[in-house]
Formats: sequence, structure tokens, C-alpha cells
Amino acid sequence: MNYRIISSILSRILAIEAGLLLLPLAVAGIYGESAMPFLWTIGLCLAGAGVLLLMGRRPSGGMRPREGFVSVTLSWVFISLFGALPFVFSGVIPNYISALFEIISGFTTTGASVLPEVESVPKGILFWRSFSHFVGGMGVLVFMMAILPTDDEHSMHLLRAEVPGPVKGKLLPKMRNTARALYYIYMAMTALEVILLLCGGMGLFDALTTAFGTAGTGGFGVRNASIGAYNSAYVDVVVGVFMLLFGVNFNLYYIVLAKRSLKGFKSQELWVYLLVVAAATVTIALNIVSQYQSFLQAMRYSFFQVSSIVTTTGFATADFNLWPSYSRALLVLLMLMGACAGSTGGGTKVARLVILGKATWAEIHKLLSPRSVSRVTLDGERLEEGAIRNTMIYYMLYTLFALGSFLLLSLEGMDLETTFTSVISCLSNIGPGLSLVGPTGNFSIWSGPSKLVLSLCMLLGRLEIFPVLTLFASGVWSGRRRGR
Amino acid sequence: MNYRIISSILSRILAIEAGLLLLPLAVAGIYGESAMPFLWTIGLCLAGAGVLLLMGRRPSGGMRPREGFVSVTLSWVFISLFGALPFVFSGVIPNYISALFEIISGFTTTGASVLPEVESVPKGILFWRSFSHFVGGMGVLVFMMAILPTDDEHSMHLLRAEVPGPVKGKLLPKMRNTARALYYIYMAMTALEVILLLCGGMGLFDALTTAFGTAGTGGFGVRNASIGAYNSAYVDVVVGVFMLLFGVNFNLYYIVLAKRSLKGFKSQELWVYLLVVAAATVTIALNIVSQYQSFLQAMRYSFFQVSSIVTTTGFATADFNLWPSYSRALLVLLMLMGACAGSTGGGTKVARLVILGKATWAEIHKLLSPRSVSRVTLDGERLEEGAIRNTMIYYMLYTLFALGSFLLLSLEGMDLETTFTSVISCLSNIGPGLSLVGPTGNFSIWSGPSKLVLSLCMLLGRLEIFPVLTLFASGVWSGRRRGR
Repeated sequence: MNYRIISSILSRILAIEAGLLLLPLAVAGIYGESAMPFLWTIGLCLAGAGVLLLMGRRPSGGMRPREGFVSVTLSWVFISLFGALPFVFSGVIPNYISALFEIISGFTTTGASVLPEVESVPKGILFWRSFSHFVGGMGVLVFMMAILPTDDEHSMHLLRAEVPGPVKGKLLPKMRNTARALYYIYMAMTALEVILLLCGGMGLFDALTTAFGTAGTGGFGVRNASIGAYNSAYVDVVVGVFMLLFGVNFNLYYIVLAKRSLKGFKSQELWVYLLVVAAATVTIALNIVSQYQSFLQAMRYSFFQVSSIVTTTGFATADFNLWPSYSRALLVLLMLMGACAGSTGGGTKVARLVILGKATWAEIHKLLSPRSVSRVTLDGERLEEGAIRNTMIYYMLYTLFALGSFLLLSLEGMDLETTFTSVISCLSNIGPGLSLVGPTGNFSIWSGPSKLVLSLCMLLGRLEIFPVLTLFASGVWSGRRRGR
Repeated sequence: MNYRIISSILSRILAIEAGLLLLPLAVAGIYGESAMPFLWTIGLCLAGAGVLLLMGRRPSGGMRPREGFVSVTLSWVFISLFGALPFVFSGVIPNYISALFEIISGFTTTGASVLPEVESVPKGILFWRSFSHFVGGMGVLVFMMAILPTDDEHSMHLLRAEVPGPVKGKLLPKMRNTARALYYIYMAMTALEVILLLCGGMGLFDALTTAFGTAGTGGFGVRNASIGAYNSAYVDVVVGVFMLLFGVNFNLYYIVLAKRSLKGFKSQELWVYLLVVAAATVTIALNIVSQYQSFLQAMRYSFFQVSSIVTTTGFATADFNLWPSYSRALLVLLMLMGACAGSTGGGTKVARLVILGKATWAEIHKLLSPRSVSRVTLDGERLEEGAIRNTMIYYMLYTLFALGSFLLLSLEGMDLETTFTSVISCLSNIGPGLSLVGPTGNFSIWSGPSKLVLSLCMLLGRLEIFPVLTLFASGVWSGRRRGR
């Protein structure tokens, strides 16, 4: 293991975090709140960055996949360990474990909160909480690559570990330019949403934080009733549509914008995603129509919630915990699926479902006609055996971690619906679940150890499991054979 | 599609069913109950067999995998369609859909019942219900092969479709002898259990039906309180241990008995299975100890329930619905895993879990060292890529059917725990679930359409999905290209 290269990357990440903290510091200043929580945290980040810089000076040798995986995982751990401090220093969340849960929920764009109410929380802290969604949405290392010089071999291994989705080939050449282009698109879309929300009469602070929550598909709100608090069909539609847009693979936007080609819209994943959203919206609206005044109103709430859950954002305009079984069951299935690969959304990704469906079909075909050769293709390109196996292993691991965490959390004796949906909500980076962790509940019901399990779930979900697992693989930490 | 060969097989199956019905007919006679329900059914079976015999006369051409899959699936459908009739004719279950659910639950060795109480049901009907577990346990086509002349090429395709588990290679040569040997072992073990139960003071009728339920890992009982009704530690231990024994791969017994080799006990699957049972028994006992008088008593109830659920039998000595969350959560996980491949038990099988674990480990290893070659082995033999992919596709399909059925059943508006565990219980061929379908509940709560969905789940579970799917695959029914 090449420790120096890892230290050097972690050092930069902490320096970047110190820089990012200047924004909530400014917000605290504007609202006349105490600057100390942020100043202390910035100081500690810089101190940490300094120590790591010393440990990682003169990095030599190449970066291998293992260094990529370990760097990415530790970057997310470190940025969270320091990012939790403002909650503790401000007294908003005095318990460090709970604060860590909250900021991991922020960076991983989960949006699960331990706060029973947020309207009394200082604006600076609320800003930091929502801003963490924006930072985590596109990935902290993609951000680093976009702003700092990194050579392409390093970038490849980092990007491979951090960008979600099963197929990453197209992103790889000219990594730094791509990372920057993707960030521009991301920022432009966020800015557009802010403008549209301001046009709808929302205040700047609410518009910014809501847009951060949407862009990262995070879901932290600054009102106790989430987006429902604005009670505006206009806001519901703007946020609902933008959640959907942020759930689309950003490569499609890049292809359309940079290459001026409409080929991006031919993506099979995109069409499955849109079809699922349409089907879910209509059937849920039919299922809940008796609870609302008209079918149109049912459609408004149904669309918002489907969009919020499928993109794994987690904003709410209705207490879907009170909806009938079919609607709740379908929302749980959408939680498992999630958004498109290469988007800011979580879950197991639509692309994997498409690959899985095709591989299954090919397998049945093969069982019936053993001598035939069947190829699995995605968007016209042949999928290699390795990509298919990797997809399946991912599902297996997702399932194993979901069930394992479910079992661990069940030790607390909560009802099984709360326990199961807490795990799925964290592993798919959604935010709310059902029952006690539904839209009106929160995660403060869980003990410290359970919060740590759920925090691990959020990291596993955001980094798509493999990078995190490498930390525990035997042989990764021994530097004897190669490297160093 | 070679229709004649399929008709000829279905004809034999119905003739065999007519023969099997002589047993409950005799029981009805002994207890002085009406013989008509059985006589009518036997007549209809023979008439059906005759029609199919005419349709399938002079079968020509070979059997391909598709004919094997279709024959097996249709055999199970036909034997159930006719096997449901005694329930209807006797008036015990007047609704045909409910009766079909009950007998599919019997043949697939699920043990889920629509009957709120069984002690008032005629003995002949109860015998038929329990006997269906015994018939279904080893497979109806394996039984046919054991007693009727079948050529080995036919047998291979039938066996491949009916015998559960991911690896079937070793069974294939000299199929008929193997089928017969396995049946001898099966019958000897059942007889031994009957004798032991008789020694414990149980009546012959109860001993026979209990042994049928254990042997097939089915779980239909003849008492309202299941095995708990006997209130005997001796009975609990005998049934608990025999359930475990019937959950072991029968090939191991065959190897030990026929080849006089202890190699069978080196099976990795066996050890994982026993370890899981031991770990689950102890942790559940610790979790429920406060509800019982002593740790030993908690162990007694815990062991019985773990053995009953992991082998997918479904007998109960306690209302585990009242146990704490951890115990219930763990039982649900055991439901998903199930027993060993090649046993009479259901679920996704321990062997698949072992293969999955090893394949996942190999994949992580490969991610870290892309140039390395890692092989997946089971019991010292290398697993081919195809076997691994097949295992994963199986899990995927299991999950898709579980979630799809969950969504369909959710339309009825039951609580999600009842809905989800109903599906898992049927798909894994267990019997009871949690909440409304727990040990004291039953499946009469579901409407006709939902019962049909659950019946399909039971068939999918018992036949391990692929054979059933081929019925719906395009091209299977067209006979133009080859064969007839």
C-alpha cells in the first residue's frame, strides 16, 4: 500500500473542506450568528491537512486500484469526521456520533436526520447541512480533480471508485476536463433551480438550500414540513422536475451539450427510468385519490413523492406513511432501484436493473437452447461478461449488507417495518423510510451503535460498496509486495 | 415442441396420482368416512390420464431441455389441479381456488393453509393433505422415474428440472438407480421417524402425518396448535432433529450408504448449514430467554423453530410472532436461505449462498489485483463460470418475483409485514410468515387472485423458477424448427 499518495490526497481533501466551510461561515456572519463553530472546524481541518501533508510529502510510485479505492473511502470518512464538528461546537447536536450520522447523511446525499425539528437551528448550521448535499452529490474527489491538478492515471483510479454506476468506460479519457465539464453542468442546473424558486416567491436562503438538497438528491430541508411547508404547487413542480433531472446520467447532458448530439437521449436506461416514474406516478395517484380532493391533486402529490424517492432525494410534500399499502410498497421498491448511473442519485441504479434484466433473459434463452450464443448489449454495445458479473455481485453485496444491518438493528426491538426501511433508506441514500422513520419521524430513535451501522450503510451506498470493502480485504494494507 | 412426449408423461403422472389416492381412500374407509371425494377424483384422474394417453400415443423424437422443463412444470400443475378435488368434493374447502392453493401448498411442501382449524376435518382428507408433502418432497417425477421404466436421456432432462440446487452433475449417470436409491433412503428415514414418534406415545395417524410433514419439509399438521399440541419435549426433539436431517443433501446419505465413504461429510454446504443452525439457535434462545422459564427451555423452543424455518418445514411449537424483533428478523433471513440443495427443503439453498460468498470474494480480489486469476471452488472442484452466473441469475429472479408479488399483494391493503412474509413464505415453501400469517394465523385472509399469485410463488419456489419461466418464453411453443 502506497501510504504517501493516500496521505497526500487526504491532505488536499481536508484543505478543500476548510475552504468550503467559508461559505456557511459567511452565512453565519450575515445572520449575526456565532462564527466560532466554523472557525474552530476550519482550524482543525487545516491542522489535519498539515499533518497529512507532512506524512504524504514526496509521494512516489504509481497508483493502483487499491490506492484508488482506499483514498476515496478514506476521503469520505475524513471529510465526515471533520464536517461533523460544527454541529457539536454549536451545540445543535451535542453528541458526536449523532453529529457524524448527520453529516455522513449530508455528504452521502441521504438526508436522514436525527433532528426532530430544524426551524430553530442557526442558519449557518442549516446552510452547512444542505451544502454538504451539494458537495457530496457529484463527489468530493471529482470536485478535487476539477479544481486541482491531478495526473490522469491517478484520476482514473479515483473516478472509477467514486462515480456511481456499472459502466464507466466512456468517462475515462481526459478525466480532468470531463470532471470540470460535469461540474459546470451541475452548477448551472443548480443555479437555474435557484432562479426558478426565487421567481416563485421563495426567499434566497430557502431557495439555495432547497436547490442544494435537490442537486445532490439529498433531501435535507430547512422547514420542519420539508417542501410541504411552502404549500405551493409551483414549488412542488419545480422541485419535482429538478429532482428527476438530477437523477439522469450526467454523461447524457455532457454528450448533448459538449458534442451537440442527440444520441444521449437514446439511452435505454433513461427511457426505463422515465417509464418507471410515469407508471409509478399514475398507479400511486389512482391508489391515493380517495385521500385527496381530485385526481389532479393526487397526481401532484404522487409525482412529487415518486420523483423524490426514485431519485433518492427524500423531500416530502405529504406523509406517505399514511398512504395505502400499494403506494408504500411501491415506494419501497423505488427506494431499492434508485436513479440513473452517473447521476447524483443513489440506490442500485436503473442501469443495473436493465443489465440484470437482459442478462436474465439471455440466461433463460441459453437454458432452452444450450448451443445458442446470446449476447447482452446495452445501448447497442456488447456488455462484457465481467461487467455483468460485477453488476450481479453488486446486487448480492447490497442484499447481504441490507440483511446484515437489518439483523443488527433488529436487536433494538423496533418494529420490523421501521428497522427494514431505516436500513434501505440509508443504503440507498434516500432519507425517510416508513413507520417511525417516515416523513414525520426521524432517526434519533436509534442508539449510537445503530447510528454507526446506518452511517456505514450510507457510505457503502454512496460509494457502491466495493471501495469500502477493500479497506477490510486481507493483504490491502501490507505494502511489501509492490508499491512503496 | 414435442407435444406427444409431454402428453405421455402427464398421462403417467395422473395415473400415478390415481394410485396414490388409494391411500387416503383406505384411511377414509378405516375411519368410516365418505369414500366419494376420493372415488370421484380417482375416476377423473384416470379419465384425464386416458385422454392424455391417446394424445400422446406413439411419442417419437428426442427430448430436449425445453420438453424437460415444460413436462416437469405441467406435471406439477396437473397433479395439483386434480389433487385439489377431494377438498372440494368433501366440502372441506368448497372454493376451488382455495382448494388449489391448499394442495399446491401440499405438493410444493410449503404448508401454508387456508384452513382456520383442522381438527374437525375428516381423517381421509387430512391424510391426503399431509401425504401430498411426502409425494412432493422428493419430486413427483423422481418418483415416476423410480417406479416406471424411463430412458436415461429423458430422465436427465426431467431430473435437471425437478431436483433443487445449483450443481446437479453428480446425480446424472444411471439416473433410474439413483432415483430409486434416494427414494429408499427417504422412505427409510420417514419410517424411522414414525417409529420414534410411536415410541413417544403418539397415535399412528398423528405419527404418520407428522412424519410426512417432516419428510417433505412441508409442515401441514393435524392439530390446530401444530407440533405444540403434543406438548412434549421428546416429540419436539425428534421432529426438530428429523427436520434438520431432511434438510441435508440426500446425495450425502447416498454417498455414505452406497459408497460407504465418509467423504460426504466433508461437504462445505453441510457445515455452513449446521453452523448457521447452531448460531441461530443460541442467539435466538438468548433473545427470548425472558419469555421462558429457563435457558434450556428457551433453547428447546428456539432449536425447534430454527430447524423448522431453515428447513422450510413450518411446524410450530411456539407463537414466534410474539418473539422480539431480532428473533423474528433472523427467522425471516433463515426463510430466505432455506436448506441444503438436493434435500426436500426449499428456500434459495445454502449451496447457493456458499457459491455466492466465494464468487463475491473472488470478485473483490480481482478488483484489487486486476491481473490475478482467481478460481471459485466448491468442495475442491472448480465451479464453472456458467454455474456461478446461473446461481446469481437465480437470486435475481427470486428477488424479482418476491418484489413483484409483494407489490401485487399490497393492492389488498394488508400491513406490509403480513404482505412481505406471505410472499417469502410461499416462494421459499415454508408455510407460516409473520403478523397475520404467523403460526396462529392462516392464508384465508387473501382474496382469490392473491391466492393464485401465492400459488404461482409456491410452484416457482419448488421448481426453482427456471422450469416455470420456460412456459412463458417466446418460441417454446412453436414446434416448427425441430422435433414436433
